[in-house]
Amino acid sequence: MRARLTVVLVGARNPQNIGSAARAMQDFGFHDLRVVNEFAPPFEAAMLEATSAVGAGEVMRAARRYDNLHEAIADCGLVVGTTAIGGRGLTRPVMALKDAAESLLEELHTVGQVGEAPGGTSGGRVALLFGSEKTGLSNEALSFCSLLLTIPMFAPEGRHLSMNLGQSVAVCLYELTRGGFEGARVWAAPQPHRATVEVRERLLRLLLDAMQRSGYARRFPANARPNIVRQLVAQLGQTGEEAATWMGFLRTVTRQMNEDDSEISSDRAD
Amino acid sequence: MRARLTVVLVGARNPQNIGSAARAMQDFGFHDLRVVNEFAPPFEAAMLEATSAVGAGEVMRAARRYDNLHEAIADCGLVVGTTAIGGRGLTRPVMALKDAAESLLEELHTVGQVGEAPGGTSGGRVALLFGSEKTGLSNEALSFCSLLLTIPMFAPEGRHLSMNLGQSVAVCLYELTRGGFEGARVWAAPQPHRATVEVRERLLRLLLDAMQRSGYARRFPANARPNIVRQLVAQLGQTGEEAATWMGFLRTVTRQMNEDDSEISSDRAD
Repeated sequence: MRARLTVVLVGARNPQNIGSAARAMQDFGFHDLRVVNEFAPPFEAAMLEATSAVGAGEVMRAARRYDNLHEAIADCGLVVGTTAIGGRGLTRPVMALKDAAESLLEELHTVGQVGEAPGGTSGGRVALLFGSEKTGLSNEALSFCSLLLTIPMFAPEGRHLSMNLGQSVAVCLYELTRGGFEGARVWAAPQPHRATVEVRERLLRLLLDAMQRSGYARRFPANARPNIVRQLVAQLGQTGEEAATWMGFLRTVTRQMNEDDSEISSDRAD
Repeated sequence: MRARLTVVLVGARNPQNIGSAARAMQDFGFHDLRVVNEFAPPFEAAMLEATSAVGAGEVMRAARRYDNLHEAIADCGLVVGTTAIGGRGLTRPVMALKDAAESLLEELHTVGQVGEAPGGTSGGRVALLFGSEKTGLSNEALSFCSLLLTIPMFAPEGRHLSMNLGQSVAVCLYELTRGGFEGARVWAAPQPHRATVEVRERLLRLLLDAMQRSGYARRFPANARPNIVRQLVAQLGQTGEEAATWMGFLRTVTRQMNEDDSEISSDRAD
């Protein structure tokens, strides 16, 4: 699925932005970056940085530069343009990213199903176009697109809307992978074991005991009712380890109070 | 809703990253940026740039710098940490952004409903923490959090995962506003007030004291380290009322142990 998506930066001027777009692609598992730029320098500078950059190296090294958009997306089928909707009077419907993503994913999945070879001539490839930092996609570039999407932004009256290029790429690719990477190995934190109810009930008894023993229950009986205290304990037992720490603490406190007592009573018994 | 969210950058070194985080906030309509940095220069450089930057000016000019995290989030209730973590052995559950966003939005909406004054002491403010570019959030910073989230990334074998700071902020804020900016969701019941970080830090000191006093800290020093204990406390302070109960209990226990002691010593002095 991800191998079918091509990210195309059209007219990006800032090498750092090209690099950060590449890094976002790497983060979300996309690999095909194409840069359309009549001037070579920004691309070359981004390449130079990439040789040392940890994050975006692979994507950047595989990236290609094209002189014009037509050439860059010649092998693509669905072409999707991104736009920040501002002053420009767009005459075509623009979808919110999350809605456009559905069509885009459907296309990518379908293509996957029919077993297209990448880079083939039958239009299996999807191009996602991002315009330059200052002016966005030109009317010519927009004319290649059969779908336009925008990242909804907060727009106070009269404010000019535009988003950083790397951030736009990151947000779009996040939306595309938000539902999962199907099949791919996604990093997942090893989740600690939750404490069981049995453990939490033991903890509850220890806490009730300490409340009794310390005199707290006598002073604040409403707070020391089992159902109230169980509610407190429900939040303690997030992990088995933490529950164990609490139990150890409560046992120590209670033992300490008991020892103090027995010392006192033995003193007094003397 | 958006006014209740505070973005906190902890230990960011690169002024450009601070600026691009501010820009992402402006794009998605969030305004409260706090930068925790013992060194002033990165913050000052970001401020300087902001005076000319179109995108992030307002957010950046209203941003504040703090010397330490505690101070920066003292008025916050729910504290959410972001983590990219590969190697670090986290011992706590981490939620995927889209799932964590649900809890976070619920909190933000609920708070909106009960009409909390911003900056009040009842914990209506939600803090979203981002760590430094290189190392992420420290264990100390993580110990303040009662919820951890991660942006799911594509992870080939053995690759170190980390995302550009500005991109992380953009993706998180995108997810929070993805469903719309007005918050059409309706919540059945107004939720109780969360305890603020300030209250939880008081609770932390009481608990550390009781651990010391009871001898628990001597027996299990690893479990009695402030960062470990703060993590326990992060789960106690779910509501102001519960935090008050815990404080009352710990004060009673400690007083009881002290009285026992003084009785013993006076007995012995006799």
